[in-house]
Amino acid sequence: MIKQYTYNEIHIDDIFSRMEEKNEIADVVAEIIATVRKKGDKALREYSLRFDGADLEKMEVSAEEIQEAYEAVAKEFIFILEEAAEHIRGYHEKQKRTDLMYMPRDGVILGQKITPLDKVGLYVPGGTANYPSTVLMNGIPAKIAGVKEVFMVTPAKGGKINPEVLAAAKIAGVDRIFKIGGAQAIAALAYGTETIPRVDKIVGPGNAFVAEAKKQVFGKVSIDMIAGPSEILVIADGQSDAAVVAADLLSQAEHDTMASAVLVTDSKALAEAVSACLEEQIPLLPRKEIARKSIDINGKIILAESIQEAIEIANQIAPEHLELCVDHPFEYLGDIRHAGSIFLGRYAPEALGDYFSGTNHTLPTGGSARFASPLSVDDFIKKSSFTHYTKDALAKEADKINAFAQREGLAAHGKSAMIRFEREAKK
Amino acid sequence: MIKQYTYNEIHIDDIFSRMEEKNEIADVVAEIIATVRKKGDKALREYSLRFDGADLEKMEVSAEEIQEAYEAVAKEFIFILEEAAEHIRGYHEKQKRTDLMYMPRDGVILGQKITPLDKVGLYVPGGTANYPSTVLMNGIPAKIAGVKEVFMVTPAKGGKINPEVLAAAKIAGVDRIFKIGGAQAIAALAYGTETIPRVDKIVGPGNAFVAEAKKQVFGKVSIDMIAGPSEILVIADGQSDAAVVAADLLSQAEHDTMASAVLVTDSKALAEAVSACLEEQIPLLPRKEIARKSIDINGKIILAESIQEAIEIANQIAPEHLELCVDHPFEYLGDIRHAGSIFLGRYAPEALGDYFSGTNHTLPTGGSARFASPLSVDDFIKKSSFTHYTKDALAKEADKINAFAQREGLAAHGKSAMIRFEREAKK
Repeated sequence: MIKQYTYNEIHIDDIFSRMEEKNEIADVVAEIIATVRKKGDKALREYSLRFDGADLEKMEVSAEEIQEAYEAVAKEFIFILEEAAEHIRGYHEKQKRTDLMYMPRDGVILGQKITPLDKVGLYVPGGTANYPSTVLMNGIPAKIAGVKEVFMVTPAKGGKINPEVLAAAKIAGVDRIFKIGGAQAIAALAYGTETIPRVDKIVGPGNAFVAEAKKQVFGKVSIDMIAGPSEILVIADGQSDAAVVAADLLSQAEHDTMASAVLVTDSKALAEAVSACLEEQIPLLPRKEIARKSIDINGKIILAESIQEAIEIANQIAPEHLELCVDHPFEYLGDIRHAGSIFLGRYAPEALGDYFSGTNHTLPTGGSARFASPLSVDDFIKKSSFTHYTKDALAKEADKINAFAQREGLAAHGKSAMIRFEREAKK
Repeated sequence: MIKQYTYNEIHIDDIFSRMEEKNEIADVVAEIIATVRKKGDKALREYSLRFDGADLEKMEVSAEEIQEAYEAVAKEFIFILEEAAEHIRGYHEKQKRTDLMYMPRDGVILGQKITPLDKVGLYVPGGTANYPSTVLMNGIPAKIAGVKEVFMVTPAKGGKINPEVLAAAKIAGVDRIFKIGGAQAIAALAYGTETIPRVDKIVGPGNAFVAEAKKQVFGKVSIDMIAGPSEILVIADGQSDAAVVAADLLSQAEHDTMASAVLVTDSKALAEAVSACLEEQIPLLPRKEIARKSIDINGKIILAESIQEAIEIANQIAPEHLELCVDHPFEYLGDIRHAGSIFLGRYAPEALGDYFSGTNHTLPTGGSARFASPLSVDDFIKKSSFTHYTKDALAKEADKINAFAQREGLAAHGKSAMIRFEREAKK
């Protein structure tokens, strides 16, 4: 049964389950990384045989394999994948930024150049479930940013990759695909091997070994966030349909037992009704054991005085997904400060954002929406500033630069501005 | 004497000195963080007494102390600080982004909301040198982003903070200043104490202990980059004045013995002349021992076949600072892919960007310009996506979302879309 609280009773830091510290696997992962750096492809082949039961003669997926997979997937699902991709492309196209250049003073040009990353690695988990949506959500923003080489890695149990995942990779425009997974795949992308090219950034979800490997190679390459368990916070008023609210909570609770589903409402009646609906709906779910455990451990209903107070609570919690099930949700949008993705109104279930509406489903968890953002085109570009001065423009500022540098005890900095005029005076 | 190489002889990964791994201090820093979390202010007072010789009754700098410091600084330097701040403000204002909202299909609204971080901590090193420029470069972009509370921490040797640093904080608009430094200051900002508020992001440079502490609290809060030793790569043609090029190289070499200064030129004559000028100029510098060591260890001249090849070399190295000392530098700007900050033409010494032109001086080092960017207003905001669907719009897509969710084995995701219509059908 889901637990109920008032605002005063809750402890914000305990709302969502946090990732456990997995220090015990750090050593294992460090050894895998060191081995891949030393032995390259040979290490990848050994690990793939041991962990995935895959005896890989060729690590790269061929064009024929991709085409075969694409054709093996049901046409209806290909259409759905393609429509989802079109929506994702449309939204992420809007995120593209332009270079910046302006002339603040006579003879001075300043600017900011936007350049896509050269090479990006996309990790896609294998195992029991297959997530073509992950391929779209990571691959499409990278290609829209202009990344020339997007490499996908995924474990191939018994040497095979799920055809839907390969079809999604084709639709997303992934450039090359390799049949390796786990910490060894992250090591290969960070350092390069004979077959796997070294990349500038690694994105995508993975198990605890993959997450730890990403942490360990961070700095050598860039990484996206380390995602924790999934979370949803639903704000719903008394007019809400309790069965709908319960279904939305369960859409996250089914993810894993550590997932968190929280309802904040100003209606005691709705709280009771949702609680009852959860009990009705859980037994009907294919993943009922997981949802049951998640609701029992992390499920919460918080009673607020008003919708405004509910938003204040949400801002303190900074959830990954925030649903606002009220009649005029845009009235509150300006007050929401901290949430990964916000779903507005009675017809915007969070699942829209997982698959189809166009926004990204890679979102900050564990309260990190206070400072982190959804995956976006920005993650696949970087900026360089630039500066041009004419001789006259530098002449006006050289003395001040010299004075500033002297104050900071860095005389050679000042000299570099002054010498340009001293030399000409001598001539 | 500076060493010379050709393109074939250089090993890109060894161009710049990398930060050493300082694993031996990790344990010390972890203990400091744990102590601050446990004992709060009491720990901060003990560490300040031990490390800074500061017996702090009050940790916060008072408004009177700030005003006194501002008045104690020479008026000419205040004017220089204020002009620099105006230039920095102007450039960073241009980086501000707007919210995004668009309507891709009937009844569908998607968007991206930009929200400033609530609280930011700015670390300013103390010790022998004082860097008011660091205060401006970190504080101003935070305030332009709209961060309401910018807190500065800096060690106060004997209880005192340098007046120029305090004056710069006043000019930058820093909200509160605390007299604490070292790993203990980072711990206090990440976890909060009775006096120090917990922040969402920590920025600013520091010694090895501060850098290690930032790494250890990363995830709990956001951090900026961990900066390595300073680097400059100068591309100069045969028309360049060798004395000017040498002065520019030395402006980075004087930073510290691990700093790197590299010239890439297509002129053997310039290479020889710059080499000679370095020998002439080094003995005249106040920081000659540091510059000498930096040039001897990390200084390099690389001979390229052409300016175009020089740019290719620079792209592979991805330097923190890149100078392009040629006549028509904008002709090459489009070909530069990887550099933190680019200085174009014969009158744009890198020192412009350290103090005065307006661009930021916090830049990616160690080759990380391949994937990282200068500090900017973007570092002090985060994005939330938002989605609104009408009933009709959801009706058109619910089946497809359900099909997608079923394929991924997440039935409750599909159900959350379908239930809205099943319920109404029943009524």
